[in-house]
Amino acid sequence: MLLDALQREADSQEAALVACALIERMYPICRSITGDGVRRTLDLVEEQVPLARTEVASGTPVFDWVIPREWNVRDAYIADACGRRLVDFHAHNLHLVNYSSPVDRTMSLAELEPHLHSLPDRPDWIPYRTTYYRENWGFCLRHRDREALGSGPFRVVVDSTLEPGSLTFAESVVEGSTAGEAIVYTHTCHPSLANDNLTGIAVAAALAGALRAERPRLTWRFVFGPGTIGSLSWLARNEQRLPRLRAGLTIGLLGDAGPLRYKRSRRGDTVTDRAAAQLLAAAPFGALLTDFEPYGYDERQFCSPGFDLPVGRITRSPNGGYPEYHTSADDLSLVRPESLAESIRALARMIAALDANRRVLNLSPKGEPRLGKRGLYGSVGGAGPGEFEHALLWVLSLADGSHDLLAMAARSGLSIDLLDRAAAALEQAGLARALGDSPADGGEETRQ
Amino acid sequence: MLLDALQREADSQEAALVACALIERMYPICRSITGDGVRRTLDLVEEQVPLARTEVASGTPVFDWVIPREWNVRDAYIADACGRRLVDFHAHNLHLVNYSSPVDRTMSLAELEPHLHSLPDRPDWIPYRTTYYRENWGFCLRHRDREALGSGPFRVVVDSTLEPGSLTFAESVVEGSTAGEAIVYTHTCHPSLANDNLTGIAVAAALAGALRAERPRLTWRFVFGPGTIGSLSWLARNEQRLPRLRAGLTIGLLGDAGPLRYKRSRRGDTVTDRAAAQLLAAAPFGALLTDFEPYGYDERQFCSPGFDLPVGRITRSPNGGYPEYHTSADDLSLVRPESLAESIRALARMIAALDANRRVLNLSPKGEPRLGKRGLYGSVGGAGPGEFEHALLWVLSLADGSHDLLAMAARSGLSIDLLDRAAAALEQAGLARALGDSPADGGEETRQ
Amino acid sequence: MLLDALQREADSQEAALVACALIERMYPICRSITGDGVRRTLDLVEEQVPLARTEVASGTPVFDWVIPREWNVRDAYIADACGRRLVDFHAHNLHLVNYSSPVDRTMSLAELEPHLHSLPDRPDWIPYRTTYYRENWGFCLRHRDREALGSGPFRVVVDSTLEPGSLTFAESVVEGSTAGEAIVYTHTCHPSLANDNLTGIAVAAALAGALRAERPRLTWRFVFGPGTIGSLSWLARNEQRLPRLRAGLTIGLLGDAGPLRYKRSRRGDTVTDRAAAQLLAAAPFGALLTDFEPYGYDERQFCSPGFDLPVGRITRSPNGGYPEYHTSADDLSLVRPESLAESIRALARMIAALDANRRVLNLSPKGEPRLGKRGLYGSVGGAGPGEFEHALLWVLSLADGSHDLLAMAARSGLSIDLLDRAAAALEQAGLARALGDSPADGGEETRQ
Repeated sequence: MLLDALQREADSQEAALVACALIERMYPICRSITGDGVRRTLDLVEEQVPLARTEVASGTPVFDWVIPREWNVRDAYIADACGRRLVDFHAHNLHLVNYSSPVDRTMSLAELEPHLHSLPDRPDWIPYRTTYYRENWGFCLRHRDREALGSGPFRVVVDSTLEPGSLTFAESVVEGSTAGEAIVYTHTCHPSLANDNLTGIAVAAALAGALRAERPRLTWRFVFGPGTIGSLSWLARNEQRLPRLRAGLTIGLLGDAGPLRYKRSRRGDTVTDRAAAQLLAAAPFGALLTDFEPYGYDERQFCSPGFDLPVGRITRSPNGGYPEYHTSADDLSLVRPESLAESIRALARMIAALDANRRVLNLSPKGEPRLGKRGLYGSVGGAGPGEFEHALLWVLSLADGSHDLLAMAARSGLSIDLLDRAAAALEQAGLARALGDSPADGGEETRQ
Repeated sequence: MLLDALQREADSQEAALVACALIERMYPICRSITGDGVRRTLDLVEEQVPLARTEVASGTPVFDWVIPREWNVRDAYIADACGRRLVDFHAHNLHLVNYSSPVDRTMSLAELEPHLHSLPDRPDWIPYRTTYYRENWGFCLRHRDREALGSGPFRVVVDSTLEPGSLTFAESVVEGSTAGEAIVYTHTCHPSLANDNLTGIAVAAALAGALRAERPRLTWRFVFGPGTIGSLSWLARNEQRLPRLRAGLTIGLLGDAGPLRYKRSRRGDTVTDRAAAQLLAAAPFGALLTDFEPYGYDERQFCSPGFDLPVGRITRSPNGGYPEYHTSADDLSLVRPESLAESIRALARMIAALDANRRVLNLSPKGEPRLGKRGLYGSVGGAGPGEFEHALLWVLSLADGSHDLLAMAARSGLSIDLLDRAAAALEQAGLARALGDSPADGGEETRQ
Repeated sequence: MLLDALQREADSQEAALVACALIERMYPICRSITGDGVRRTLDLVEEQVPLARTEVASGTPVFDWVIPREWNVRDAYIADACGRRLVDFHAHNLHLVNYSSPVDRTMSLAELEPHLHSLPDRPDWIPYRTTYYRENWGFCLRHRDREALGSGPFRVVVDSTLEPGSLTFAESVVEGSTAGEAIVYTHTCHPSLANDNLTGIAVAAALAGALRAERPRLTWRFVFGPGTIGSLSWLARNEQRLPRLRAGLTIGLLGDAGPLRYKRSRRGDTVTDRAAAQLLAAAPFGALLTDFEPYGYDERQFCSPGFDLPVGRITRSPNGGYPEYHTSADDLSLVRPESLAESIRALARMIAALDANRRVLNLSPKGEPRLGKRGLYGSVGGAGPGEFEHALLWVLSLADGSHDLLAMAARSGLSIDLLDRAAAALEQAGLARALGDSPADGGEETRQ
């Protein structure tokens, strides 16, 4: 199957180190749902894998939404009467509420207060806040610093621009040999937060890079875009492609110490869900499987009822699931190379299985065909069949057009790798034919 | 939701006391499947809620049945040679086998014996026996008294009439705002038996009375009629109405000390069954849920395969489930006000949920709609959503026309009250539309 | 129901003794997938039940297969230089690899070695090996004897014929009163192996013999044929019959000390599977139920995806499931009369239930029909119904055309015997009608 190397300890560890180096370089950049920070981040990714970029102009309608004006920041701070910067965007880009509109005024503490955000319980951490869709401004600061602000007056400067521009997303596409497609989506809109989601970007780059060296059955599309409005923009521009989408994953938060976690698609029994049940729940990954809920990352959009796609989510600790989440403590120290490496192995395994997965049609379905005369079966009878012969019999038995390899694995207890080899041997011998790759076979997802 | 007050401790206790008073007044009346006893009982109910009565003439065919002649009793007794009444209808109306035909004869003990019914194991209780559909007569008596009858001869008098007349049932109807309907059926045919089923009559009157002050979505029909032939008569006259029947309950035996018990409809997964699973099984009711079986009360008729309606049953101890069942010991002392109050709370909760339940269609199903610009969502992002925002997301996610609110509650773990409020807010905002209220939406029950 | 006597201890034990006697007479014969050994075996069976034989000529195509040349053996041995027979077919027919082609040569040990089969772990047992579909020859011997063979040279003689002829299978058919059919298939191709499968042959003969004295609803077809190519031949000649096949079993290995074991059909929920779940899993049989897998006996062919028939398998220890399997130790001593008797009882029970099973249509489905006026129900009401009345209500409730008696048994908890009597009474009273017996009712298997 695909990505054999990345499924192994050594190669995945090496890939994790490369990912760590990329994460370090991306970390200082101020990203948002639009703006040059995203473009500079994609420049760094492009050093590893080719990207096709899309710019969607401000004002473009996207379903119920509209692409907002583009946001860029030159400077932002709160200074005291002496001009001393008490809160400084250049010290940490989380200090500025993301998408703050321009301000340049002197104001009292009372006037400033409603625009300040801090965490009394975590006085040393800066929270992460955004105001994408309502014009406003604000500053996030350590609660300890907030208590020492003094009584003002304060000079408050947000030297940002909110101007017609565009939203940027990028794709790294690996063409497949059939009409089927698959997607891996990772969000790119978070500023200096490491686990959420520079790990997702770096792991997606690693997988896309490795897959380019192979010849998958499905066309795999690794998409780097902002949360919500980015996936909506991709969906709006790819609606005609969706009927061919066989599987998908949103990924992110892949470097922390928590266990792997798979969140099911809305339908709960899609091919992606069944792959996770087969491949991730058991050893060596022992991933937690959780039901769909309509809060989280971009799976919310892919699984909205108007699309209802076979898209699950792989993270380690999920949104809201670790104390450092959405604070300045989600920094480079939170990202563990061994966690990244395991995440890469798990994703490589999922991609390989989803790509190999297919429905197969037994072309000699009345009785068992003679495997012996085709060299597929030992010719002296009386003793039981070996593991591979067993897999041949299972594939023949279930190759009725309604079972895919994952369904065969679930029913037989055999691994998808073994069933893939057996199916390939039967296809080679003319005893079976892969389905689902031509429009005539019906493109829709196999359901059990 | 509807019937908020009756779902609370205080109001339900007050309603239970009113019900107890009604039960006391109904208790002495000799009821049967026809006759003036039923009419006098309905007079008492009508002091609390308006009723529309239907008289179905003797001889009218009702499916496989025919409305029998009407039965009324002036007097009935067994007297000894001295004229002393040994068994006297006026002492307890259970003494006479219900629907006994007229007799006036002197006979030996041997001749009398086959017409006597007693309970050797419960020598102080009078059993309840009927002979509706085979012309016969008989007396029920305490076994202790039977042993002291003496050797006769006996004067046996049943001064009853079996004459062309009619069967009586009555409805208290609360009109709803949609085309959907629901039914609550309680049987009225038992003579001096308190728990079975004066409690059902009194509780139905309490619920119907309270519901009249509200504006339900469904038209609720509280039907007071005799067992079997009464529900069959209602069904025969309302066949055109059945496709609009969204939910239903037969109720009775609601005052004893046993726990609440819900018996599923024949299909086992109707909206009524799902409501019971959501609302009655857990605290505070802790009701027992049992599968359908074709013995019991009028759910037998509603769930017969030619109708197969979404009608479950709520009782406390069921038929045959307590020693006093169908004997003179099922008297006023068996009815506990606190049991009645809890039964009222449970039924009010079921009625409210069944009435609120609806399928909802997301009118902006491609991606999530912008809740913020409609005032439905906090505008500063970065922190997780609150309980109500969560409910909005769940409703939007599952509002695909195949999930009703009960299905959403089962899947999300949120209460139907919260989901009802969220759905109403989305309907108000033009983001969703309630289904199932017009013929174009399809009137049939939602199945999961 | 059918086969009452054989379901009882005494009659089944008597039948087991008759079966044992037949097994003893069949044991010495050298059988294979073709040849006179099969015909002589069928001669012995025919002493107990009439058989219709079919001869399928060598060269006939059967799906992906072709009927091979017929194989018969006069003599076969390995002799030393002095002419002393070291391995002798006449001592045990397992010594010759089944379907060995003719040889008459003197050869060295080195040349002989690749043609020898023995079991180092079981040095006193002769293994059973075949080479039906690749021309070859070989000898099977005790490993102890193999080690004492000496260094040769050896005279090796296989005086066999592989010539155009035919494959033989036979059927004992008991005609039913409806268009439905059922099959019991047992393989006949094993030489001197007792449990596998002379027990299957003898038990099939016992059941066929007993059933001839009765009048079943289904036409029961007991088929005696070789493994794989035999069932394929039967299927090829009976394709038009398959849509009428309501149930089926492959049987064999019925005499060892292991517990009864039912292997589900490929679909897993066919009528045969549901009968086994109802009748075999519980006391007194306590049979193990196992899922279908595509290895085993002729159920492989009946359940291949092009047929996918409702055919399960009943054995005691399955193929490969006991140490003596496919060796000379599977001899007469392995067959226990008490095991055979229990197998006969279990099969008689399955046959009776499968034959009685039917879908029933309630002809008075709106409300309950009046059972009392038809003499089916006690006429004095007030007390609960008895067991038979309960069964009447269950049948009426579920007689919607989608439940068969087995489904009613599963749902009601009542025995299929009781439900069969209730259904018969309702059919008799004109309240219900059996379905599935005419083409207009649809011949396909009822699924729940």
